[in-house]
Amino acid sequence: MMSTDVIDGPLPVFTTEEYRRRVGRIQERMALERLDALLLTSEANFRYVTGFNNQSWVNLARPRYCVVPADGDPIVVLPQTNIVAMRETSWVEDVRTWPAPRPADDGITLLVDALRGCLGSHHRFGAELGPESRLGMPVGDFLRVRDALRHAEFADGAALMSALRMIKSPAEVARCRRIAEITSTAFEALPEALRVGDTERIACRKLQIALLQRGADKSPYLIGASGRGGYAAINLGPTDRVLERGDVLIIDTGSTVDGYFCDFDREFAFGGPCDEVRRAYERVWRATEAGIAAVRPGRRCSEVWQAMAEVLGAEAVRGSNVGRMGHGIGLLLTEPPSIHPEDATVIEAGMLLTVEPGISFTARTGSGDERKVMVHEENVAVTEDGCVLLSRRAPPEIWVVD
Amino acid sequence: MMSTDVIDGPLPVFTTEEYRRRVGRIQERMALERLDALLLTSEANFRYVTGFNNQSWVNLARPRYCVVPADGDPIVVLPQTNIVAMRETSWVEDVRTWPAPRPADDGITLLVDALRGCLGSHHRFGAELGPESRLGMPVGDFLRVRDALRHAEFADGAALMSALRMIKSPAEVARCRRIAEITSTAFEALPEALRVGDTERIACRKLQIALLQRGADKSPYLIGASGRGGYAAINLGPTDRVLERGDVLIIDTGSTVDGYFCDFDREFAFGGPCDEVRRAYERVWRATEAGIAAVRPGRRCSEVWQAMAEVLGAEAVRGSNVGRMGHGIGLLLTEPPSIHPEDATVIEAGMLLTVEPGISFTARTGSGDERKVMVHEENVAVTEDGCVLLSRRAPPEIWVVD
Repeated sequence: MMSTDVIDGPLPVFTTEEYRRRVGRIQERMALERLDALLLTSEANFRYVTGFNNQSWVNLARPRYCVVPADGDPIVVLPQTNIVAMRETSWVEDVRTWPAPRPADDGITLLVDALRGCLGSHHRFGAELGPESRLGMPVGDFLRVRDALRHAEFADGAALMSALRMIKSPAEVARCRRIAEITSTAFEALPEALRVGDTERIACRKLQIALLQRGADKSPYLIGASGRGGYAAINLGPTDRVLERGDVLIIDTGSTVDGYFCDFDREFAFGGPCDEVRRAYERVWRATEAGIAAVRPGRRCSEVWQAMAEVLGAEAVRGSNVGRMGHGIGLLLTEPPSIHPEDATVIEAGMLLTVEPGISFTARTGSGDERKVMVHEENVAVTEDGCVLLSRRAPPEIWVVD
Repeated sequence: MMSTDVIDGPLPVFTTEEYRRRVGRIQERMALERLDALLLTSEANFRYVTGFNNQSWVNLARPRYCVVPADGDPIVVLPQTNIVAMRETSWVEDVRTWPAPRPADDGITLLVDALRGCLGSHHRFGAELGPESRLGMPVGDFLRVRDALRHAEFADGAALMSALRMIKSPAEVARCRRIAEITSTAFEALPEALRVGDTERIACRKLQIALLQRGADKSPYLIGASGRGGYAAINLGPTDRVLERGDVLIIDTGSTVDGYFCDFDREFAFGGPCDEVRRAYERVWRATEAGIAAVRPGRRCSEVWQAMAEVLGAEAVRGSNVGRMGHGIGLLLTEPPSIHPEDATVIEAGMLLTVEPGISFTARTGSGDERKVMVHEENVAVTEDGCVLLSRRAPPEIWVVD
């Protein structure tokens, strides 16, 4: 059942030293922002600090809390059912627990005590409140915690976590590199495996099985969209639409190894591409080249966007409706920064980014002209003097399924 | 690549009438709770009302809002990138949009306008604030919305949604039944496919591939835990631990078809079970029988718990640390109610429940006595006079891998 070409072998471990360095950097930023403690409840932030690696996050009846004090090691408050997993995957020693679910008090008394014990001169706590954050606990409970500690202020703590998480360690890069390699290999097997007559759903399933066979853990995001002469949007499907000659299929996946994501897409022309598709593909491919060439330390994200927009033309970019042309990847499918004309983030070594140009174009479909989009995507790791590809570059001409 | 025994065929569609009935029931409860509008931001609630079916929820840079007014159709506010998916999967016509990500105003002005337009005599809105809820937008943005509408009160709206969602329609039951059937068949293929020497990770991967080949869409939850003479906890792994003779492996999965979950587990004895494992398995199997027999309309969840606890013994139940012995399933892996001694929810026809007894026991492992747990799980649909199995019943003796 397992394929012979599984891509595995040991990955560098996350050492306790690495976690302590992370906590140290968080505490430096907390001092600048005058925070007595930082409350982390989302899977990505909780895992980043504690190492806790567990699938229980899909169970909303059981929230988890990590409190980073201004000094010293974090405190974790989590359900009894997670105690064994905590012991096996985390370095954190101060672990407090309750029998969840207990809607009347799902760890709230313990959490308030932990936060109160951290109160210092600032009377100010950080929590995941800002852009792109989600709180991993019921908001009603958060408001109760805030009320119980109403002599203290709650400020956003998500931005400082995002800023630190943007720069990846070698162990983090290794995981994104691994899943990008697995995904590249799985995509490259698809032109042989896909058939005219497959549905979008079957095509996506073939990729997902190929990913698992090669060593991927999960594919939380795996879409397929298709249409005659192109697709109307990305972020669709897969549906039971049957793929026919003249169709273009895009498959885009965010898959993971050990919690770390890749995020890129590939396209397939069924029965060979028409001229409009060929031209659009070539233009977006060149824009991807320009984007990759523009990624280097010291550049701003907005400049990478500009480099791609120049190849594509302003109108075609506007029409693609994608809103940005890339973003960070890591413990989440999309993380800050954004490759966006208004994102002035300065690129640094250790960032992992998607380069994702897109355009709209008109395809003659037989039933008249239709507006289509085309989006390419690659993943890169920023180095000291430029960047290196994590994904294996898409071919300069669209893959053909015949 | 596809297996021949794929379990597919058309599922009953969700009609606009069904969505309108849902909205009608929500509005009845809103009237009782004196809500001028209900704000829904989580994937499950948003999809339940609008039908919007899309994988974009993993992208936290792009929140979505559904406003259910006291009368009339819902209003949706969502990113431009979701417009095509909205048109293709939802019946809702009032759709308002902005180019996300735009951290300074990610739909907030549009959302405040939509809520303000619903203001009525109650000056009271519902939002996802209560137990087991998660808000699908940054809390900072929610607090800004609350502040912009500070002449109105925000109360919990999650409980009324959970109460309605507990009772499934035939189209919902069909989806849970389908994924439970796929998962049963995939599990039944495992005793042949597993090998002494597999790792937990490989064993889980074999199941995940078998699930995909039979027609599952996703496996957001798929854990494997093992040990000599039993496992120390569920909710672990899978790890690279190698499975040897004398080991017991549990695999538990929440997989989906069209967004709807099953949630059950199966166990495997490598090289045949020892006496303690055999006895523990038999006891938990009988408790599952007692639990299934106890599920019928009019009973309380706490009574189903009692029926299982009587077979298991109070001490063994306490030791299992699982906190409850079942829960609802549907658009989420775990939903209310809980099969818990303190959950007095009265069971009704149309509920989908897991029956999930667990105990702790002592296994002689060669290196001394060790505390192990054993948990079984089945999925049932409550009928007018009892319940029917959705999962195919686990065998009365543990599966052996040799």
